[in-house]
Amino acid sequence: MGINVKEESLRLHKEKKGKLEVVGTMPLRNGEDLALAYTPGIAGPCLEIAKDKENAYEYTIKGRSVAVITNGTAVLGLGNIGSLAGLPVVEGKALLLKRFGNVDAMPICIDSTDSDDIINTIKNISIGFGGIHLEDIKAPECFYIEERLKEILDIPVYHDDQHGTAIAVLAGLYNALKIVDKDLAKIKVVINGAGASGIATAKLLISAGVENIILCDINGVVVEGDATLNEPQQKIARVTNSGLEKGKLEDVIKNADVFIGVSDANTLTKEMVESMNKDSIVFALANPTPEIMPDEAKKAGARVIATGRSDFPNQINNVLVFPGIFKGALKSRAKDICDEMKIAAAKGIANLINDDELHEEYIVPTVFNEEVCDAVCNAVTETARKLGTAIDWK
Amino acid sequence: MGINVKEESLRLHKEKKGKLEVVGTMPLRNGEDLALAYTPGIAGPCLEIAKDKENAYEYTIKGRSVAVITNGTAVLGLGNIGSLAGLPVVEGKALLLKRFGNVDAMPICIDSTDSDDIINTIKNISIGFGGIHLEDIKAPECFYIEERLKEILDIPVYHDDQHGTAIAVLAGLYNALKIVDKDLAKIKVVINGAGASGIATAKLLISAGVENIILCDINGVVVEGDATLNEPQQKIARVTNSGLEKGKLEDVIKNADVFIGVSDANTLTKEMVESMNKDSIVFALANPTPEIMPDEAKKAGARVIATGRSDFPNQINNVLVFPGIFKGALKSRAKDICDEMKIAAAKGIANLINDDELHEEYIVPTVFNEEVCDAVCNAVTETARKLGTAIDWK
Repeated sequence: MGINVKEESLRLHKEKKGKLEVVGTMPLRNGEDLALAYTPGIAGPCLEIAKDKENAYEYTIKGRSVAVITNGTAVLGLGNIGSLAGLPVVEGKALLLKRFGNVDAMPICIDSTDSDDIINTIKNISIGFGGIHLEDIKAPECFYIEERLKEILDIPVYHDDQHGTAIAVLAGLYNALKIVDKDLAKIKVVINGAGASGIATAKLLISAGVENIILCDINGVVVEGDATLNEPQQKIARVTNSGLEKGKLEDVIKNADVFIGVSDANTLTKEMVESMNKDSIVFALANPTPEIMPDEAKKAGARVIATGRSDFPNQINNVLVFPGIFKGALKSRAKDICDEMKIAAAKGIANLINDDELHEEYIVPTVFNEEVCDAVCNAVTETARKLGTAIDWK
Repeated sequence: MGINVKEESLRLHKEKKGKLEVVGTMPLRNGEDLALAYTPGIAGPCLEIAKDKENAYEYTIKGRSVAVITNGTAVLGLGNIGSLAGLPVVEGKALLLKRFGNVDAMPICIDSTDSDDIINTIKNISIGFGGIHLEDIKAPECFYIEERLKEILDIPVYHDDQHGTAIAVLAGLYNALKIVDKDLAKIKVVINGAGASGIATAKLLISAGVENIILCDINGVVVEGDATLNEPQQKIARVTNSGLEKGKLEDVIKNADVFIGVSDANTLTKEMVESMNKDSIVFALANPTPEIMPDEAKKAGARVIATGRSDFPNQINNVLVFPGIFKGALKSRAKDICDEMKIAAAKGIANLINDDELHEEYIVPTVFNEEVCDAVCNAVTETARKLGTAIDWK
């Protein structure tokens, strides 16, 4: 890129005063227009909805709209910087939802760090929306908040940091495994980072059929019985690392087939990659600096390498996922985004690349591939139709 | 109108699926656009806001946006029909805010009837907005909710059912009094309806200099010491009806100069108008059927007559007011919409009609007069500048 991204982004945000505009879809040229869009005509839609709440999907924005909600406690790689500082991100997500999924999304910052307070606030405002997109809420609170909201709301709730990453990773993994000709059920996967995206990725890989997963984080290997783990980590420990391995990343990475990094810059060394099985797969997704640079991983023997960055091949990016997820969820009126949908979405993304196009540096389509959103949308709608009701991993 | 408003409104709402769309203001054509609008460029605005919350006004939608919030407990003339059934109204208000004030407004339904719960919810989500527009929340709760929010928030909070009506009435009253050549300080005003708009109108008229006001409602005259009154009614009773008159509308309307109806259809009889002072002013604002039909009021001796309807002369309509109020409040970064601003706004609207244009059937401009919004906006910004800090009627 020939531009200074930081400066140019600040300039552009300042010029536009953010990234969204709320515009009307009905004309207001004269009294007749006003009578239809507002009083007295508006009493009609109000009364229809008062009779049956379902009618809100007919007469209002509800069925097209999603609230993109953050409390600013885990913003990008920046951490807990406050709810208002998360506004550029939720505005950005709303921009992307419109651009790629034609979903009308409203950015909401919740100025609270109390989980029950956040849950109650979202419960109170959710009625006017068709879905809830949670964003940049820190672990472990994000798990509890999402789980409770899924229980109490009758619209889909989706924490993108968890599921967007998990689905994009699984999509990439399907194609990477084709290249190295390994079987999902037989690979050893090491996930570095046991926060929102690491735990969600582990859960989805298990649902998809991966049997051997070990998570690590900054304190070492996640193992059942470790009392220092938080509750979501204890839960995931029960269904991963069945050999109860202990130690650090450098210990468990040995003979792994797949490394998935959702952690920090430079946490995967050349030596660790060298200790992996032949034809290893390395997804180094830390942003902006990956766990290992692609050229180093290559030299150390990795066969398929992906990052979160657009300037390297194989960008594993949530943007591939969430616009289609919400487009599909709204279209099918799914009450939940369940694991079947997520797996179908990952397959939908992976299958956009034909076998004859597939190679080490092309395992996922780019976010500008116009087929991606509809592939994900169709996966969600078809699964919703098939299931009748949605189920989910608890 | 040559159309069936009810059917055509339902058809139009169904065709459009509501009235709003959330669109992006930044292009997303390629990786460079994505880098500026989203990662990694977005970290710049996030960090600037983390350093200083004021920067949200520079880099996000905050300074352009208003949340239009209802809980559906007092929707139009329909009453307590549920929060979701209020969505067409708050969408409509957002449409009007954009069309007339170029304000980006987001409709929010709060599914709660507990005042403190509503206050807490609004407090939590307010940080991302430049202002809070409360809508169709029933009295007396609306007073407490607005007052508390004004105390705890540092952005303007404005309940349109109260202040929109009050300002539009005062605008009409300024011009009506010019026609009948009576002095604000000397007139007797009877307000029928002691709910949100009636009480707010009484307060604003007092601030504007009206000394003799009596409120009535369905139970009769509002008088100090009546234990059946709710708290906001008791408060207004202390500063109105100084003669401690009792009885019903038909008693106190005698010798009144001005009738302001914010009550129900057909509550003002011909005989009552006949008992008013010469050159009486009748604002019969009940919708869709006024307290008295204009031709009847005319026959009974009223000289200036206004209604809330667009199909009669002199439509006293909140649409004249709120777009300019928020445009001005956002522009001037006013922390509060105080009575000085409201009075200035009313004068601004009234003064759009020159003395040589002014007559009995033209006391307020129409909502499609393109000068209205800026007149209100300028009144707010100039008052904000003059005051430095805003004060308010308590």
